[in-house]
Amino acid sequence: MPALGNGTRMFRFAQHADARGGLSVAELGAGLPFRPARLFLIHDVPAGARRGAHAHRRCCQLAVAVAGELTIRCDDGRTREDFRLRRPDEGLYLPPLTWTELGQFVPGTVLLVLASEPYDAADYVRDPAEFRRLTGG
Amino acid sequence: MPALGNGTRMFRFAQHADARGGLSVAELGAGLPFRPARLFLIHDVPAGARRGAHAHRRCCQLAVAVAGELTIRCDDGRTREDFRLRRPDEGLYLPPLTWTELGQFVPGTVLLVLASEPYDAADYVRDPAEFRRLTGG
Repeated sequence: MPALGNGTRMFRFAQHADARGGLSVAELGAGLPFRPARLFLIHDVPAGARRGAHAHRRCCQLAVAVAGELTIRCDDGRTREDFRLRRPDEGLYLPPLTWTELGQFVPGTVLLVLASEPYDAADYVRDPAEFRRLTGG
Repeated sequence: MPALGNGTRMFRFAQHADARGGLSVAELGAGLPFRPARLFLIHDVPAGARRGAHAHRRCCQLAVAVAGELTIRCDDGRTREDFRLRRPDEGLYLPPLTWTELGQFVPGTVLLVLASEPYDAADYVRDPAEFRRLTGG
């Protein structure tokens, strides 16, 4: 699957399906790259809405489209790539200093994001010029 | 919301809704009672299927119906209670030694479970008689 030079990448979780349904599993060292301190769920996104447009200085994130589909445009300061999330058994790992823009949500989409750090407003980079400076672009 | 004597309980995550949609947030100390070492997603459950029917010796869990609805029957050895999970901004905290049975899934339901420990087959209690013994029932 596509990846950026800074480590941004999609991967599949382990699958254990049987007559009772599907089970996707990720744990530390196998699909879960860090121990989360925070989670958030984005839901009820109106048609055409866009979210994101920022990067984090230190926080790592793991994004999963647990229902529906959306596109996350990722930029590490050198390369830009669109990742389409469409399954609850796929995760997108977002290392620090990855600029993300979320869009093209289908109705009913729920996006789970696990974050390595508690919320800290100072961790957000919202100015594209500062992002380019931080990534040496 | 209802709770069992061992600490099993439902709670609401913090909500931040605006024109771009809904955002539910939980972090350590506020909606996230432990730092997860594992997550799993249960999806594509056939109509009428039941899952669970076990408890954990040490592992704590947090369950969220990120899409759809299901019922989790919880038993702490003294009291039994059915919790209906129906929203991505509600979590059910399951402390150790809570016997759970999952059922009444609506089509399209996706259940997120965060677990405090890595997978360990020896942590599962699958024998009801052993569960009653462990909980002093």
